[in-house]
Amino acid sequence: MVRYFVEVAYNGTHFHGWQVQSNALSVQQVLEEKLSTLLRVPIAIVGSGRTDTGVHASQQYFHFDHATPLETAAFLHRMNAFLPQEIALKSITKVNDDAHARFDASMRSYIYRIETRKNPFAHGFAYCYTHPLNVEKMNEAAIFLLGNHDFQAFSKVKTEVNNYFCELNRAVWEEGNESLIFHVSANRFLRGMVRAVVGTLLDVGAGRTTITEFQQILLSKDRRQAGRAVPPTGLYLSRVVYPAAIFAKR
Amino acid sequence: MVRYFVEVAYNGTHFHGWQVQSNALSVQQVLEEKLSTLLRVPIAIVGSGRTDTGVHASQQYFHFDHATPLETAAFLHRMNAFLPQEIALKSITKVNDDAHARFDASMRSYIYRIETRKNPFAHGFAYCYTHPLNVEKMNEAAIFLLGNHDFQAFSKVKTEVNNYFCELNRAVWEEGNESLIFHVSANRFLRGMVRAVVGTLLDVGAGRTTITEFQQILLSKDRRQAGRAVPPTGLYLSRVVYPAAIFAKR
Repeated sequence: MVRYFVEVAYNGTHFHGWQVQSNALSVQQVLEEKLSTLLRVPIAIVGSGRTDTGVHASQQYFHFDHATPLETAAFLHRMNAFLPQEIALKSITKVNDDAHARFDASMRSYIYRIETRKNPFAHGFAYCYTHPLNVEKMNEAAIFLLGNHDFQAFSKVKTEVNNYFCELNRAVWEEGNESLIFHVSANRFLRGMVRAVVGTLLDVGAGRTTITEFQQILLSKDRRQAGRAVPPTGLYLSRVVYPAAIFAKR
Repeated sequence: MVRYFVEVAYNGTHFHGWQVQSNALSVQQVLEEKLSTLLRVPIAIVGSGRTDTGVHASQQYFHFDHATPLETAAFLHRMNAFLPQEIALKSITKVNDDAHARFDASMRSYIYRIETRKNPFAHGFAYCYTHPLNVEKMNEAAIFLLGNHDFQAFSKVKTEVNNYFCELNRAVWEEGNESLIFHVSANRFLRGMVRAVVGTLLDVGAGRTTITEFQQILLSKDRRQAGRAVPPTGLYLSRVVYPAAIFAKR
């Protein structure tokens, strides 16, 4: 058996998230079906993590096993021709047999893209929010997210995790011409976490929540204290980092 | 009467071009209807030029007259809330009574956007062309377009113009990471001209047409000699330039 890591990007608009579900189309399902058809053997894949309904990925990874080595360049080309235009494979790499796309990921990054003026080319790719925002205050508040914290206040309530601790090493708003991008990196993320954090930081930017209140929300561990989740349309899984050692065989 | 110049951007995917037609929805029609409703008086607009079915504009201008001065900031805000998300007004400026969006435009620019790898986020916004291209040769050929030439070889055959002369002052390919953008500026453009030029330059880049043959196509004045038109999805009217004098009243 040869194990491969595949880098994939997808437009999540019309998918019910990454993970296979019984009653709705997911990115994982499309990938498994197309891989199984092309390779003529049932293929199961393991993603670095799940993305929710409507969330995009500019970089996601999954692994799968195949009995014999693949001609990777030709394989990528054929898969991209075969997959719908919403899903693109970017690269494929042979890894160690025990490398695991989910368990070995050491860091994940998301971006949340906001357009601050009406933009005819951003529909489906960003959240349009045209009210005035104090970005300096939003960045001041975001600093309190850095480090290791219990993020239960920003997590969906029905979730399967044992604990709500996440270690963030980046949480910053970058101002563009008519856009605003939130960059956040952590060892792990909880369900709905980035969208709840962004929604609550928008409350800070709009003056509805003070920085002190933002701190208190984090400490409360109570989802009802935090702001509403922003729409998935602006959210992108943008980077997954693995230790170099898993690629040793290459 | 007060005359206004309005800067507008639109996603042309679902419109049958700029100009009003009897049997299909155009950008001009939507703008005239919404302006007339909001201002409660029939409004006719004059665009800087037409764009074809499916072509986008990141910058287009039109003018219209109104009996009384408008509160421009509030007007822009209300119009943007009222217009569909595919059309956004960017700015509005009072101009001299005789300023004309079409006749006073001294230069127009287009870009044509090509994605050289499959991109799940570019569908509808670029043309995907993944075959190898010699961009250096495409730029060598493009130099022959600069200056004042008869562009009949790159014009749609059924057109109402008196002559086919256009003066180009820019025609260059810019290479991005996984993209390729053609920038072209001229005093005027003929119908279908940019798409025919781009298609013929792709023939040069793919090695199907030599640079000498490209020169001969331009000189032939025969549309059948040029390459096929590329799809409208990658084409954007990107800039319209006016002499500063028309804004004198501001």
